[in-house]
Amino acid sequence: MSRWEPNARGRLEQAALELYSERGFDQTTVEEIAKRAGLTERTFFRHFADKREVLFAGAGSLQEFFVSTLASTPDSAAPIDAIAATLEAVSALFRERREHARQRQAVIAANAELQERELIKLASLASALADALRRRGVTEPTASLAAEAGIAVFKIAFERWINEANQRDLSHLIRESLDELKAVTAGT
Amino acid sequence: MSRWEPNARGRLEQAALELYSERGFDQTTVEEIAKRAGLTERTFFRHFADKREVLFAGAGSLQEFFVSTLASTPDSAAPIDAIAATLEAVSALFRERREHARQRQAVIAANAELQERELIKLASLASALADALRRRGVTEPTASLAAEAGIAVFKIAFERWINEANQRDLSHLIRESLDELKAVTAGT
Repeated sequence: MSRWEPNARGRLEQAALELYSERGFDQTTVEEIAKRAGLTERTFFRHFADKREVLFAGAGSLQEFFVSTLASTPDSAAPIDAIAATLEAVSALFRERREHARQRQAVIAANAELQERELIKLASLASALADALRRRGVTEPTASLAAEAGIAVFKIAFERWINEANQRDLSHLIRESLDELKAVTAGT
Repeated sequence: MSRWEPNARGRLEQAALELYSERGFDQTTVEEIAKRAGLTERTFFRHFADKREVLFAGAGSLQEFFVSTLASTPDSAAPIDAIAATLEAVSALFRERREHARQRQAVIAANAELQERELIKLASLASALADALRRRGVTEPTASLAAEAGIAVFKIAFERWINEANQRDLSHLIRESLDELKAVTAGT
């Protein structure tokens, strides 16, 4: 019997998200996820440490992408412009994933523990961006403020992207939110 | 025997913070906290649900103070000015509490679970401020952006306040961080 299971990871993710949406996260077992995906529990655990990890498995590579993209922006760019360019590049990762992102967010919004995990993910992203800015020679508190502002813009644009009826591009909403933040802090 | 225990709550807080600093949060028991404060466990549980709550008991009233202060700023104030006035008023609450705040932050920084709880506190504050701005007629995404920016400024100013050797006023550091955020978002 072959162990080759085409796109096992993607099938497990899809099955998990469906079940979390239908029954709630707490009411879903790994056994059920594996069964829905037509795979075994053993295969599940080759891909994910636990059922929560299915929702956060991408957090590490998202953070790496943020940091490497920021590192590749020209040194001459002002911190906020480097952050803006980074957020725009990141938005391309989500282009075909709006429905997935919307479902995932709904599952997280329904569960306090998952909300906490999501907050930690965002705080960790902000902290990694501030580190990356400091490596570019940006001093404190500028590095932390630019990073926190960037993550706030990303978070708010992302929420608008998955919740608004008219499906505008995430990159468009990021630019708009950043302009809005500029206007807000300018007091206009 | 009298049940009157002068400033039991304050004594428990002080004893808990000392023990968390000396031994670590996980290694401290409620029994030890009560003993150090010269009180009973029963008294501890009249004041706090558990040992974690000692560190976060003020979160609810801090949030109420944030929201009521924001509500009392003139309607004519721009969102960012209303937030700035609110942060300045809040900073007065901490004036005599720098050493306490410094100790508390060190205990939290040493424990992942407490860091999560602190993140939730800050996210909840941002969300309450955004609500309060919407009640003033501020629309989205401006309300959320102003609130997130305000909490980022508060968090960063607070960290500088407890960590910097030269003890500047928290209110001074809040103004400075807000000016810095304005400069950052303006791209200068």
